Amino acid sequence: MVRVGVMGATGNAEGELTRLLLGHPGVETMALVSRSRVGTEAGAVFPNLRGLGHVLEDAGALADCRAVFLAMPHGEAMTVAPALLAAGIVVVDLGADYRLRDPEVYREWYGKEHASPGMLPQAVYGLPEFHRSELRDAHLVAAPGCYPTAALLGALPLVAAGAVDPRTVIVDAGSGVSGAGRSSAGEYQFAEVNENFRAYRPGLHRHTPEMEQELSRAAGRQVRITFTPHLVPMTRGILATIYGQLTGGHRTEDLLDIFKNRYAGEPFVRVLEGLPETKAVAGSNFCHLSARVDRRTGRALVFVAIDNLGKGAAGQAVQAFNLAFGFPETTGLERPGVYP
Amino acid sequence: MVRVGVMGATGNAEGELTRLLLGHPGVETMALVSRSRVGTEAGAVFPNLRGLGHVLEDAGALADCRAVFLAMPHGEAMTVAPALLAAGIVVVDLGADYRLRDPEVYREWYGKEHASPGMLPQAVYGLPEFHRSELRDAHLVAAPGCYPTAALLGALPLVAAGAVDPRTVIVDAGSGVSGAGRSSAGEYQFAEVNENFRAYRPGLHRHTPEMEQELSRAAGRQVRITFTPHLVPMTRGILATIYGQLTGGHRTEDLLDIFKNRYAGEPFVRVLEGLPETKAVAGSNFCHLSARVDRRTGRALVFVAIDNLGKGAAGQAVQAFNLAFGFPETTGLERPGVYP
Amino acid sequence: MVRVGVMGATGNAEGELTRLLLGHPGVETMALVSRSRVGTEAGAVFPNLRGLGHVLEDAGALADCRAVFLAMPHGEAMTVAPALLAAGIVVVDLGADYRLRDPEVYREWYGKEHASPGMLPQAVYGLPEFHRSELRDAHLVAAPGCYPTAALLGALPLVAAGAVDPRTVIVDAGSGVSGAGRSSAGEYQFAEVNENFRAYRPGLHRHTPEMEQELSRAAGRQVRITFTPHLVPMTRGILATIYGQLTGGHRTEDLLDIFKNRYAGEPFVRVLEGLPETKAVAGSNFCHLSARVDRRTGRALVFVAIDNLGKGAAGQAVQAFNLAFGFPETTGLERPGVYP
Amino acid sequence: MVRVGVMGATGNAEGELTRLLLGHPGVETMALVSRSRVGTEAGAVFPNLRGLGHVLEDAGALADCRAVFLAMPHGEAMTVAPALLAAGIVVVDLGADYRLRDPEVYREWYGKEHASPGMLPQAVYGLPEFHRSELRDAHLVAAPGCYPTAALLGALPLVAAGAVDPRTVIVDAGSGVSGAGRSSAGEYQFAEVNENFRAYRPGLHRHTPEMEQELSRAAGRQVRITFTPHLVPMTRGILATIYGQLTGGHRTEDLLDIFKNRYAGEPFVRVLEGLPETKAVAGSNFCHLSARVDRRTGRALVFVAIDNLGKGAAGQAVQAFNLAFGFPETTGLERPGVYP
Repeated sequence: MVRVGVMGATGNAEGELTRLLLGHPGVETMALVSRSRVGTEAGAVFPNLRGLGHVLEDAGALADCRAVFLAMPHGEAMTVAPALLAAGIVVVDLGADYRLRDPEVYREWYGKEHASPGMLPQAVYGLPEFHRSELRDAHLVAAPGCYPTAALLGALPLVAAGAVDPRTVIVDAGSGVSGAGRSSAGEYQFAEVNENFRAYRPGLHRHTPEMEQELSRAAGRQVRITFTPHLVPMTRGILATIYGQLTGGHRTEDLLDIFKNRYAGEPFVRVLEGLPETKAVAGSNFCHLSARVDRRTGRALVFVAIDNLGKGAAGQAVQAFNLAFGFPETTGLERPGVYP
Repeated sequence: MVRVGVMGATGNAEGELTRLLLGHPGVETMALVSRSRVGTEAGAVFPNLRGLGHVLEDAGALADCRAVFLAMPHGEAMTVAPALLAAGIVVVDLGADYRLRDPEVYREWYGKEHASPGMLPQAVYGLPEFHRSELRDAHLVAAPGCYPTAALLGALPLVAAGAVDPRTVIVDAGSGVSGAGRSSAGEYQFAEVNENFRAYRPGLHRHTPEMEQELSRAAGRQVRITFTPHLVPMTRGILATIYGQLTGGHRTEDLLDIFKNRYAGEPFVRVLEGLPETKAVAGSNFCHLSARVDRRTGRALVFVAIDNLGKGAAGQAVQAFNLAFGFPETTGLERPGVYP
Repeated sequence: MVRVGVMGATGNAEGELTRLLLGHPGVETMALVSRSRVGTEAGAVFPNLRGLGHVLEDAGALADCRAVFLAMPHGEAMTVAPALLAAGIVVVDLGADYRLRDPEVYREWYGKEHASPGMLPQAVYGLPEFHRSELRDAHLVAAPGCYPTAALLGALPLVAAGAVDPRTVIVDAGSGVSGAGRSSAGEYQFAEVNENFRAYRPGLHRHTPEMEQELSRAAGRQVRITFTPHLVPMTRGILATIYGQLTGGHRTEDLLDIFKNRYAGEPFVRVLEGLPETKAVAGSNFCHLSARVDRRTGRALVFVAIDNLGKGAAGQAVQAFNLAFGFPETTGLERPGVYP
Repeated sequence: MVRVGVMGATGNAEGELTRLLLGHPGVETMALVSRSRVGTEAGAVFPNLRGLGHVLEDAGALADCRAVFLAMPHGEAMTVAPALLAAGIVVVDLGADYRLRDPEVYREWYGKEHASPGMLPQAVYGLPEFHRSELRDAHLVAAPGCYPTAALLGALPLVAAGAVDPRTVIVDAGSGVSGAGRSSAGEYQFAEVNENFRAYRPGLHRHTPEMEQELSRAAGRQVRITFTPHLVPMTRGILATIYGQLTGGHRTEDLLDIFKNRYAGEPFVRVLEGLPETKAVAGSNFCHLSARVDRRTGRALVFVAIDNLGKGAAGQAVQAFNLAFGFPETTGLERPGVYP
């Protein structure tokens, strides 16, 4: 039984994390830490917790924790993590600060210097399907972004198998609005998002270098991809549609076999014959995935559905936490999604 | 550890029931029984179960079950339940067949004779907050309808306390579309439901006599109410707004006190100072409730939010099952809702 | 051909007004006046106007206008209207400042003194179905609120006919989010509104006294009602469900006859046999209305659907403008709603 | 003034067509022809027309029409159009039957022989921006599919200008549900579409050969593309995101210039600096379009938003009708979209 903390506890990913940790049999107690709303009842921030008695605390409450989840705006976790690590606390960062191994790439995409580049070598990219063994010993987990989780689960097996030319990879994805956080920016008002579909930051989204880092690792050379995120009028869910030129005469069955072999035994990745849909994984840590060959053009198409707050954020963070603490990997995450 | 069955296993409430029972530590194995789709993978019916290995079975699979949940069109459970009961199996019926104690009222509202009126005396109306002790011994549970659950949790305490004249009760409620089942009727197509709000069957909805039966019991005399359901463009959730003329000079605080006293110790009913919202309870068995006095007109207003598939159907059925089998009442139901 | 102005031109009602006036054959030119965003392309505020060349101007542009529509936060129109009126400009105010004839009532509900009470006697409440003749001579039109439009079109005929006891009237209504304006308040974020249904300000909404003023006028005595607004997860539309105790043994047909007689010849009010739905009137100036008698309880139920931005705001304002300027009343408003 | 007919008048595109033709000053009278629902009030099919007095008629009502719009399931228009044409009636077909010039391609994608291949040479592909002069003399207009309208408006200028290698074109698009028609198939139920995002028929959608036909014409050689449609949880709108490898060192400004030059003077195509969104064009005949260069990968990205029922179906059909009858091209189509 472990006492854990959640720091920066007022956003959507934090809410989901809190929900998951409340149902985690290995979590003894939980500190919900907020810098701006200390003393507030958690139910005032997350209406699903109303009446359950949780209260937001200050950072002092982290002292006895053995693990702390950081869910803060980018640039802030790297100012907080070193002290926690020095105190022997395992850090699972849901933000971007420790995902990029090269501080130069961090600067290029985030526009500032990394505050604790010395920690980068020990950070483990928290995608269990590709970094499981490192996660078992991890003290600093950099949980992947929501888009990269979907994109990498779909693209890595084909790139690693040499089935797709990595230079031709295009990731076209759509996300529910919860990924944008809970800021009150006008662009996420109901009346402006509902009945609307649009792309944003094409070619410029900060999740791009994460994808390239991991794909380059699999390809054995530097890979650059095109990534285009879209805003879908829904709350939760990401569907990534991934394109790549086939290197040979693969058929749909061949691609599905690559995925089935790669993910055999994986507790959360389901390779489907049919096409995935985001609603089937909402509220869960599952990933639904399928693939097709477009024979007329020689392209592979991969379709990956996750819950952006689940496998794309809080669920995956708990999965990494389970690995780091020796809990069965699925602890607290077994439930299927909420449907419909 | 109990083996349970779910019969009629292809609708929304059944899907939710399956999800909840999969996470119930007292359930050993589960038979999913369908008359029309035997042999189908459950994931083909409930996409959230894709890849998890459950298969729909025929009624033979119920033989070893100690409890069977019936989720069938009205009029069918009453042809199936007697044999199950005779075999010593506890029956939890999510449909309407055993909710009305008077077969005459059944005929009036459902337009047919009751097929097993002899079973009605032993049926327990499965609203734990008002029938808990009977549920502990129940062999036949008639789980309440979704609207009556919300309406009764809001109206019964005020009627029982004599604070509201029962003849003036109006229940105005809105429900998400999942309550309408999974039929393919055109009226529930996305393009016709989305961005739409409308009333249906005002004064004629079959959930009316359930409400009147329980309110009459509390009032000590026959009560007739007006009930107007509305279709809200959302998937899950019911909000009931209940009106009633106050019998005295009650203030808002007085009403809240009545509710707080009545529901003190209830594990799933939360009396809020603020107003409830359906999203806060989605995916859960919780009920959020509040009240206001409109002093200018001397009326009480009560607001009750539940998940129509949770506390309004599957969750409540599991709660009754827990009581009937001696499990802690909250087993498998502790988790807060999924938000946002 | 008339030059018109729209002042306060950045909210949802103003956007709809602009759209309607662009298609109005009697409008020669239009000044879009904003205090905060002068010089901005209108398309930056209203994306449907992108590329059409309209630019927000300052108040000087109102000088040559013969009519000015005011769409400003309450309390601001009454500081601006007197000068416009003095300059001989017809004012159509979409806000609340001139709706209440009694400045005392204004103070009670709006918490401040009225700034130009001397103008109130000349203000005409802009509900054409009940104030048509006064509107033909009006210089100052107080366009009704969105909820009152629906509530009054449904309740006035029954109260005026003596079919319903006015003291028993309850207005329960649900609105799309666009009625809340375009403020960036967190409570109207997509992720918090979508899949959510809740009441707000029960018994306290500022549209209450408007309803009471007009109902009192019809009843010939002071009437107090209960009004409960709800937020529906959709962008446009209001459905009002109105309850009242019948004074006699009316049947549904009797109520429908009262409405059909009252609204015979009305260009925008349709009395339906079936129940209305908001989607059928979205984007239009139409009102769909029906009624039912709940014989078991002796209550009348009236259902009224409008587009809150159409008949509930901009459309009705244009209808009043047409009357004031002698245009055929339906000019620019003939088109049916956008469906689906 | 022209009398027109709409045949097959019960689907979403027909509803939109009816709405537009009702507001068209050049349309004298309109016959709404349905084979299955003769005598039905149009308002029973299209709730926005309730109470307006239109009734569905049989095919005899087409006799006096000078133009007939066909909106029928594919394969049916080609059995009806020849007789109409022989009677001197201009036919605007909103379906697929006359879009493909090569009956062989028709057979390949639609799985049957073309019933009137002799008519194909006179059919004009009804995309005014690329076939305007032929449309002025057209007797048989094949209005483009919704996806091809968006894809071609975005891709043709770049392919024609040689800026993009046509073999690398990928069209990734998302559509609202109204494009799927009004069938009662379970897959379009609200509860299953809402909060869901998924791809369908990747590489197999029947709109693919239309795109290839027109792109091949622009490229001067046979072009094959990958087209992946997605279902977006909204009613109206298509956003196409188009990828293609640049042939040179183009910058974003270069692409925007190509579009601005190509569409200068086009009444309905707006080239935006910012990114388009479907909501801005909902209910209108406008197309909003923009482009970006992803310099890191040398790809062009084009973003195109239309209303699938407007510019993607009914609006464009009216635009072609205007050209064929010598009305100003924008007649009845001038209004901006309904926002929000």
